[in-house]
Amino acid sequence: MPIQEELAAIVGDAHVLTAADSLSRYETDWKGWWTGRALAVVRPADTAEVAAVMRLCHERGQPVVPMGGNTGLVEAAPPSQAGDEIVLSLERLNRIRSLDAVGFTMVVEAGCILQSVSDAALEADCFFPLSLGARGSCQIGGNVSTNAGGVNVLRWGMMRDLVLGLEVVLPDGRIWDGLGLLRKDNTGYDLKQLFIGAEGTLGIVTAASLKLFPRPTQLETAFLGLPSAEAALTLFGRARRDLCDLLGAYELITRGAMDLTIGTFPENRDPLSTPAECYVLLQTSVSGGLDLRPRLESFLERAMEDGLVLDGALAESEGQRAAFWRIREDLVDAQYRVAPVHLRTDVSVPQVKLADFIAAADAEMAKHFPDLRPITYGHVGDGNVHYNVLPQPHLTEPVTAHRYEECETMLFDLTARFQGSISAEHGIGRTKRHAFLDITPEIELSLMRGLKQLLDPKGLLSPGRVL
Amino acid sequence: MPIQEELAAIVGDAHVLTAADSLSRYETDWKGWWTGRALAVVRPADTAEVAAVMRLCHERGQPVVPMGGNTGLVEAAPPSQAGDEIVLSLERLNRIRSLDAVGFTMVVEAGCILQSVSDAALEADCFFPLSLGARGSCQIGGNVSTNAGGVNVLRWGMMRDLVLGLEVVLPDGRIWDGLGLLRKDNTGYDLKQLFIGAEGTLGIVTAASLKLFPRPTQLETAFLGLPSAEAALTLFGRARRDLCDLLGAYELITRGAMDLTIGTFPENRDPLSTPAECYVLLQTSVSGGLDLRPRLESFLERAMEDGLVLDGALAESEGQRAAFWRIREDLVDAQYRVAPVHLRTDVSVPQVKLADFIAAADAEMAKHFPDLRPITYGHVGDGNVHYNVLPQPHLTEPVTAHRYEECETMLFDLTARFQGSISAEHGIGRTKRHAFLDITPEIELSLMRGLKQLLDPKGLLSPGRVL
Repeated sequence: MPIQEELAAIVGDAHVLTAADSLSRYETDWKGWWTGRALAVVRPADTAEVAAVMRLCHERGQPVVPMGGNTGLVEAAPPSQAGDEIVLSLERLNRIRSLDAVGFTMVVEAGCILQSVSDAALEADCFFPLSLGARGSCQIGGNVSTNAGGVNVLRWGMMRDLVLGLEVVLPDGRIWDGLGLLRKDNTGYDLKQLFIGAEGTLGIVTAASLKLFPRPTQLETAFLGLPSAEAALTLFGRARRDLCDLLGAYELITRGAMDLTIGTFPENRDPLSTPAECYVLLQTSVSGGLDLRPRLESFLERAMEDGLVLDGALAESEGQRAAFWRIREDLVDAQYRVAPVHLRTDVSVPQVKLADFIAAADAEMAKHFPDLRPITYGHVGDGNVHYNVLPQPHLTEPVTAHRYEECETMLFDLTARFQGSISAEHGIGRTKRHAFLDITPEIELSLMRGLKQLLDPKGLLSPGRVL
Repeated sequence: MPIQEELAAIVGDAHVLTAADSLSRYETDWKGWWTGRALAVVRPADTAEVAAVMRLCHERGQPVVPMGGNTGLVEAAPPSQAGDEIVLSLERLNRIRSLDAVGFTMVVEAGCILQSVSDAALEADCFFPLSLGARGSCQIGGNVSTNAGGVNVLRWGMMRDLVLGLEVVLPDGRIWDGLGLLRKDNTGYDLKQLFIGAEGTLGIVTAASLKLFPRPTQLETAFLGLPSAEAALTLFGRARRDLCDLLGAYELITRGAMDLTIGTFPENRDPLSTPAECYVLLQTSVSGGLDLRPRLESFLERAMEDGLVLDGALAESEGQRAAFWRIREDLVDAQYRVAPVHLRTDVSVPQVKLADFIAAADAEMAKHFPDLRPITYGHVGDGNVHYNVLPQPHLTEPVTAHRYEECETMLFDLTARFQGSISAEHGIGRTKRHAFLDITPEIELSLMRGLKQLLDPKGLLSPGRVL
């Protein structure tokens, strides 16, 4: 019997999609940079069906790739071009199983959209802090599997820090119910850590219990013009102390990135009257009616006196706060608009070295890649910068893939010299696999391969991703 | 050649101790509940020597148990009674390798005493939040290997949350240098998670890079009398919101525990004028000159109006703060003073169920164990309680080990019914191994055994601990 029929016996005919159906939503990544071909797309309704699908595929030696919102940036979720993989979509596992506003916990299924999880938390007067550009489409299972980052990592951590427990279907179809609600549990090895950030190569996350926090009662958002990235780092160290580690976000936007977002979307306007070398979007949030505004104002006054900040604006309305954030968040779209194909990176270095890294990269770019221009922005507080590379506007010939690869190699070599990471938050997937395998010491690769062998001895889950 | 001589060739004669020397410090745990016998104690000077020792032991099939400050509570570090294990003491790896007060990071070797790490951070105007009773003796390597908890978990997390990177010697003597300073790194599986909380069964932690925080500029400490543990939970939920998640500690002391600490140490006095059913020791800390005192006062006023708090005192001096904390911290000594042998537990349950758990345990105790009395206190905010059991004062016969085992079984069964953990922060070691193996589902044990097999195929590192 063809495997499609056996899958249909598990999940129902309507939930096995094959070539006859439109599979483009599952076969192509959202950027349109990658298109594969699925043997079938299967959409189980619940954990038991996921397990049954995995048992079947395990018996049949059938490769499977789990898919959440398909918003990843490293081509992990779309199927391979060989057409031999089944895409297992978690989208129907989209229930919020429980929410406890007293104990500040929530149990949600993998297919829940991040935005709906955040909204449900807010309705219960709580706060789930994970936030990233794709929040309207990405799913919790993908957030867990990629250890998602975003704009609130500074205060609340990566997804890894927000997970209390997991439910996981192993490659052989066994269900591990690790959905505890415990804040502390030192009984044996912490198995959930294996699956967080494993990009769907070790198991399929079907549900997660999450930490919640008090709903913020006051947000303060500042848009600041600074003389340099170095000043942004110095200011950050001060801000941690003076604002009592209540910084939620501390985002850097360099001059070139600012020009791009303003130039591409006329509704985005520079909130400041004088142009600056770089900008910081800073946000604090507090609960319980604490008023941080006076402290923020005096903090900024002192920073201006000391020349760390040249000019700044504090959001006076929700509309103004949204406008500040649009400048930052529209950067992603602006890059695709201006150059549908370009080079994206996601580098982190020890936080204090970030300005030096940017300066060193800019110098290399000017010297060896005058045909390309950097668009630089990111989560400075985390030492994480998206140093992206677009064609210079005046170019008449398209930039070749090979040219981007040369530039990427230069940036990755530089990252290594700064003891940095070539993937701070996006993961490895297929896109960065070769660079990852090149860079990573053999002792680490051997341990990682051992973990893969332990969990997925047949190598059927997300083959060719990460390892 | 006897292995002692080969070890001496690596670390020098002076650093291989054998039966002729006094080994009691290494062979007996600090409580004096466990005494083993070491084939030898070896004290390497640095990571290279640790690696050489492990290579030798791996070749020779020689079991090794790493030891930090030997302050653990589950008999993981002292050698077995068979006398066939070598104790590898990390005490000479006690250098602070670096401290960065701008980037808020610190790299320390495994043998650094926790207190000296905290002190070094404070000197640099920073703060390392891990704090537990044993801080004057316990070592960072042990803190990492046991995923230590303590009184500041509420705000800053367990040791797992404070580690940026690790240096680990594997059982076969290979050195893994994972001592990064990155806040974000999603390149492949997060290997450091394997070794945190593994109780020295998967590798030997030789150094760690740690997160630091701004040094607090204001501490506020309150000692509160409450009508019930239930009220303590309700108050905690309110405190998270009203005090903006700036609670550092939120410790419960029940009536019986209060009587014990006051009765045993006359210098400890009840800070409140009216006796209460239970007490909460609450501490907030802020930096940057933020003044949380007015908010704390109004929060407590409202709690008193609502009957959640009956009476309270705010520390007005460092001396008073220290006196409040002594009441809590002297509890451990008081129990050993009153009953040198007793039953200690370290249970966690979903935080909102903690009062119900204590009530259910008290009811079982009254019904089935009238000869025993509970001494209950703990980290309520984390859902973690030390529900310890001492003989009733009027008993004339000593309580048998068997009787304590019956009581422990009852408490562990109750914990399971509450979806709790039998080891919130102390670990498994040898003491809880049987209960752990009984309770843990086969799917989890098989994964854990797989990890052990992967890292330590010869089973030479800390044999008989955890698994």
